[in-house]
Amino acid sequence: MLNFDYSIPTKIFFGKDQIQKLPEQILEFGSRVLLIYGGGSIKKIGLYDQAIKLLRETNIPFWELSGVDPNPKIESVRRGIDLCHNHQIDFVLAIGGGSTIDCAKLVAAGYYYSGDPWDLMIGKGQFENALPIGTILTLAATGSEMDPIAVISNPETNQKLGMGHPLMAPKFSILDPTYTYSVPKNQTAAGIADIMSHVFEAYFSNIKSAYVQNRLAEAILKTCIHYGPIALEEPNNYEARANLMWASSLAINGLLSYGKMRKWSCHPIEHELSAYYDITHGVGLAIITPHWMEHVLEDSTVEVFKNYGVNVWGLNPNEDNYAIARTAISKTKEFFITLGLPTTLRSVNIDEEKLKLMADAATKKGTLGEFRPINNQDVLQILKSAL
Amino acid sequence: MLNFDYSIPTKIFFGKDQIQKLPEQILEFGSRVLLIYGGGSIKKIGLYDQAIKLLRETNIPFWELSGVDPNPKIESVRRGIDLCHNHQIDFVLAIGGGSTIDCAKLVAAGYYYSGDPWDLMIGKGQFENALPIGTILTLAATGSEMDPIAVISNPETNQKLGMGHPLMAPKFSILDPTYTYSVPKNQTAAGIADIMSHVFEAYFSNIKSAYVQNRLAEAILKTCIHYGPIALEEPNNYEARANLMWASSLAINGLLSYGKMRKWSCHPIEHELSAYYDITHGVGLAIITPHWMEHVLEDSTVEVFKNYGVNVWGLNPNEDNYAIARTAISKTKEFFITLGLPTTLRSVNIDEEKLKLMADAATKKGTLGEFRPINNQDVLQILKSAL
Repeated sequence: MLNFDYSIPTKIFFGKDQIQKLPEQILEFGSRVLLIYGGGSIKKIGLYDQAIKLLRETNIPFWELSGVDPNPKIESVRRGIDLCHNHQIDFVLAIGGGSTIDCAKLVAAGYYYSGDPWDLMIGKGQFENALPIGTILTLAATGSEMDPIAVISNPETNQKLGMGHPLMAPKFSILDPTYTYSVPKNQTAAGIADIMSHVFEAYFSNIKSAYVQNRLAEAILKTCIHYGPIALEEPNNYEARANLMWASSLAINGLLSYGKMRKWSCHPIEHELSAYYDITHGVGLAIITPHWMEHVLEDSTVEVFKNYGVNVWGLNPNEDNYAIARTAISKTKEFFITLGLPTTLRSVNIDEEKLKLMADAATKKGTLGEFRPINNQDVLQILKSAL
Repeated sequence: MLNFDYSIPTKIFFGKDQIQKLPEQILEFGSRVLLIYGGGSIKKIGLYDQAIKLLRETNIPFWELSGVDPNPKIESVRRGIDLCHNHQIDFVLAIGGGSTIDCAKLVAAGYYYSGDPWDLMIGKGQFENALPIGTILTLAATGSEMDPIAVISNPETNQKLGMGHPLMAPKFSILDPTYTYSVPKNQTAAGIADIMSHVFEAYFSNIKSAYVQNRLAEAILKTCIHYGPIALEEPNNYEARANLMWASSLAINGLLSYGKMRKWSCHPIEHELSAYYDITHGVGLAIITPHWMEHVLEDSTVEVFKNYGVNVWGLNPNEDNYAIARTAISKTKEFFITLGLPTTLRSVNIDEEKLKLMADAATKKGTLGEFRPINNQDVLQILKSAL
């Protein structure tokens, strides 16, 4: 196990009607709120009305930044920062999924940065401070509600980049599983693929001495596999939605990666797909992951795949290691198919044209991952096999 | 899954030589330190010298409260509070295991309470504030390094009581597994029984919808079962000591119990054994737990025992549920025997004399547990079967 400095400061208010705690939590940190959200879904489910009613009842003034897209754009961040300056905002409240929360994070940090907020994403600018952030989550997927990471897209440069800083960790997040009842099947499925991919990025690692982390990772994977199909079949199943929602936060808040390296493989590849084609993040991950698994399966990695097969999929440990590994990879692919997720790049309108461009971009800073490091040629092969 | 408010604010610095961060961490919160420790073990392993060298190098003045016993006594707490007042202490640093840390917690809270600190343990006094607390852990067992609970004994009243308050959560804890290399076999074993018992108290529950928590609990149990014998065999095995140390914190920091009830069974029984006979906490737990399991096994609970047998001990899920449950209980007992732990009350010099007294004391506030609530008669039967 590697040394680590553990800090997960975000408070979570989990369960039905926990939104009642919103005003008291905001007032701990601020008094003038920028409310950030995406499209109309939070209005459709009544969450918007409920939130602003609570703010009005407690005389908390608020302003709004709406229309934050999936794969949130730097332009939304810039608008948010302007609103903060114009209205002396001292608290940022995101209501939505990971895109909305990520946008809120960079608004909060960009507020204190004198230059363009994109500088913070590319390492040109320094994080100095951030407005306090709270979130109300409506989608179990990215885990952004409990981590310090923001992923932002810049269509002008065809870049989708992730950046983490402790200042961007939300002060609190409200996780009410009933808010995810209305999430459509395809988004529910993409969210599950995203959660599982976060776990995979930590689990498939050469730091085998991080035993307890690996067993915890398997626990989250089993939860996704158990409840994924139930949530699709019965969207209002509280137990399924609750377990998936809490799994989404635990998958990436650090619990599984402290004591290991945090050097990812599939996410950086997918970010290129989303940057160039604006596809749903979880869909891209579901397409790529099984092909990445097949590509990196070799003598040095087969043992971890065996553990995955035995401990997560219940395969017979007495079989040949490679046989277990291959079955486990097939099971992963089949599971994504069961969830109704696409399995090929062509099915999301990605053809050969930009594969090399994306492979090069994904590996611009060097090889990906520490499990079996992959270079641009590896990525190109993975993408081609996923066509 | 039940609603929950999650907050685990303690920062963890995990791994070899993380003690180097001690001065900077203390200086974030205070400048005049009360150093609390137990006997000579921290001097024997050089940790005491290392810590005070760091304090001296950074000109942090400190005073000492030493001689804190296992099952720490209220008298030590009173002495600690006096020292804090006499020397304008603004930071409490515990170096040791759970007993030392628990003592430090009540010193920190008792400092701000005008009456006798025992009042805080019995609910007669109110927690108003607490000095900031840091810890350097030397024993993987109680999890006190990452939770807000203190367990303190009062020999005058034959009471050993636990009390939790968010103000008593350590600001930071330094977990260096090498500090546990010198822990003797019997204490290592008792610590493992303590960790596993914390997991059992959360795992054996009727809140079956807390699926993700249950799988996480199994991960911690598997870690104890895997590394327990290795740590006994090779005391300087870093991987084993590291996994057990991190498991000890995760077992009781809330991760496994958020979303479930926190209504315990075996711990309150064991607290009576320790209160009347001053035995090692983990030893008492190892003796009682299998008998408690046998006592509460019935139609309403057998399914959880089955999950335990299949997921933790790898038993065949196609067997009869009761057969799996009974084998799992036997395996638990055998595992404690493998660790060299006593299996009967008589072997730790407890006879029939006070069993009824202790059973009544353990259930003074009502039945124990929510899995299969047990009353004084149940406790008496469990204790008798453990004789």
